[in-house]
Amino acid sequence: METTIEAGPVIVLVETQLADNLGAVARAMANFGLKDLRLVRPKVSPDDPTAIATAVGARSLLQNAKVFESLNAATKDLSHLFGTTACEREMIKKYYTPREFASTAVFPSQIGIIFGPERTGLSNEDIAQCYGIIRIPVNPEFSSLNLGQALVIIAYELFLSKDMTPSSFLHLGSTKPATQEELVYFLSNLEQKLDNTHFWRTASKKPVMWRNLRNIFTRMDLTQQETKTLNGMIDALSARQQTRPKSL
Amino acid sequence: METTIEAGPVIVLVETQLADNLGAVARAMANFGLKDLRLVRPKVSPDDPTAIATAVGARSLLQNAKVFESLNAATKDLSHLFGTTACEREMIKKYYTPREFASTAVFPSQIGIIFGPERTGLSNEDIAQCYGIIRIPVNPEFSSLNLGQALVIIAYELFLSKDMTPSSFLHLGSTKPATQEELVYFLSNLEQKLDNTHFWRTASKKPVMWRNLRNIFTRMDLTQQETKTLNGMIDALSARQQTRPKSL
Repeated sequence: METTIEAGPVIVLVETQLADNLGAVARAMANFGLKDLRLVRPKVSPDDPTAIATAVGARSLLQNAKVFESLNAATKDLSHLFGTTACEREMIKKYYTPREFASTAVFPSQIGIIFGPERTGLSNEDIAQCYGIIRIPVNPEFSSLNLGQALVIIAYELFLSKDMTPSSFLHLGSTKPATQEELVYFLSNLEQKLDNTHFWRTASKKPVMWRNLRNIFTRMDLTQQETKTLNGMIDALSARQQTRPKSL
Repeated sequence: METTIEAGPVIVLVETQLADNLGAVARAMANFGLKDLRLVRPKVSPDDPTAIATAVGARSLLQNAKVFESLNAATKDLSHLFGTTACEREMIKKYYTPREFASTAVFPSQIGIIFGPERTGLSNEDIAQCYGIIRIPVNPEFSSLNLGQALVIIAYELFLSKDMTPSSFLHLGSTKPATQEELVYFLSNLEQKLDNTHFWRTASKKPVMWRNLRNIFTRMDLTQQETKTLNGMIDALSARQQTRPKSL
């Protein structure tokens, strides 16, 4: 059996019953770069049309899924097995959140993640074979996670543990952030137009009002184009205002 | 419209097409404690039997879903809107990973998370209405995430940001961790039995071999009951070995 550690953990589904779950698992595996799917005594064939439709573009993952008669046969070449359960079992076993599991899962060998049948979950026998258990923190009042949903969360955590996506960033496209010169030009343009319209009512109120206004614009991460647009906007607004009689 | 900040962000689905996605969204929301679902021009009714079946126990969430004619109408009472997209748009907009979003989402007001139609995603018009964008890091070669799968990841991250589950723990049930006394007793019992069976072959090899063996047992987080069981096991093994002739 050929598996590489780079391909990430092997996903082993025991006695999966529903075709759309099988398809959802394949799609979610592809979404997060997992490749090796193994089925133990599946109740639904990986050739099932619903499974293939639900897998969308991940059909090849289903086609390459290997079928086994037992969990032992399916996991022969793997080192650590992690079971998944919704609730604690009466066994001495280490439990991991998906996040902790993902940060731990950089074993120098191929590991497996085992999912039980939809209705009953993994048997205690199968769990006894596992090194540890992954359990997803969930609303205790509604803890029944769909198989595909449980898998996508674990696959997502594994993917994130190797992912370098910045946690947030401002998408600027081909534009550039405004320089301070551009920002200051815009602000002085704005201030002057507001002076012209008697926006401040009394001179004594201006300092605080103007500081508040500047606070709005300075935190906006404006781009060069956006400061031009804003300048155009206030120019247009003030031009219109000045042609109108004051009383309107 | 009554919403409480404690209920978490409001989920707004725009022109959702598939009944099982609607059901999966409701189930995943319930799994992670989200309560307020709003539908803008849905292509499928929240009363759809497939949607209800897929929602499993989260039927009431579908029943309480409100339907609106426009995104503006659906989000009137909310403050910050976060759109979801699979790819970057040509707009100046801040992007968040689900994790960063979840840690940011403790606004002192009600926020909304907007999901577009399955096939096309959110329109640029709808995105322009959003404060920021949540994008899930994903395998660039297979980036098409199912609607329900995308939602469950974001809901999971929101839940985790408030969750106190320890990242890993050893489930002990009603048993207790072994004391050092019990561990040392077990180790000395083991050592003696191994001495009896001439396990070390040459005396000079024993120190390293025995250190290696102890390393195995000391990292096992043994419980009191487990040390008793192990003692019983080696007693039984060594008793059997001693009754057997050496040559077997």
